[in-house]
Amino acid sequence: MDDVDEILNGLMTELKRGAIVLCVLSVLKEKQYGYSLAQLLYDKGVPVDQNTLYPLLRRLESQKLLDSEWVLDDSRPRKYYELSAKGMAVLRGLTDEWEKMTRGMLNLLI
Amino acid sequence: MDDVDEILNGLMTELKRGAIVLCVLSVLKEKQYGYSLAQLLYDKGVPVDQNTLYPLLRRLESQKLLDSEWVLDDSRPRKYYELSAKGMAVLRGLTDEWEKMTRGMLNLLI
Repeated sequence: MDDVDEILNGLMTELKRGAIVLCVLSVLKEKQYGYSLAQLLYDKGVPVDQNTLYPLLRRLESQKLLDSEWVLDDSRPRKYYELSAKGMAVLRGLTDEWEKMTRGMLNLLI
Repeated sequence: MDDVDEILNGLMTELKRGAIVLCVLSVLKEKQYGYSLAQLLYDKGVPVDQNTLYPLLRRLESQKLLDSEWVLDDSRPRKYYELSAKGMAVLRGLTDEWEKMTRGMLNLLI
């Protein structure tokens, strides 16, 4: 059944990819730096690999959905991210669509 | 806000891509042909474009998650698809993971 596990892993990656964006946007309603964001997502039961998280943050920033600033914490520079007004609009739209989709899927799956 | 709509559309496509696989596998616990499958998904509130559905069916079949057979219905040949034993194992695993992920996301979003 190794083949099943391999297919399942591929499908899970696909399933999570879109969901992760929504989770990251949602958590960034409050200012976070990379590591604190990763911790929060992990604690909430949505662990996101750092190799996924950091490129995603850069992408969302380049789409102007996030604002960022460097802050000196305990003499370490840390880049903090927070949802922009545009990011907030996207989060609202995406959450609505996710809820609709999830209701449809519950209908189907349960 | 056109830019927001464009970004939102891209993210929704990403969000739906993985979910659609799960929905299609789930519906194919019972034998369906392409059009009846599309109708069922639509009725359940998970509309899937035919340009997405047909390539996906071919992919799932090549992964041996689906069995298929041609049947003559009203003198039209129709290709029926149904979950294979392997597809059933993948569906079970994927549904479990989806439930876990969705619980985590509800935690985050609501």
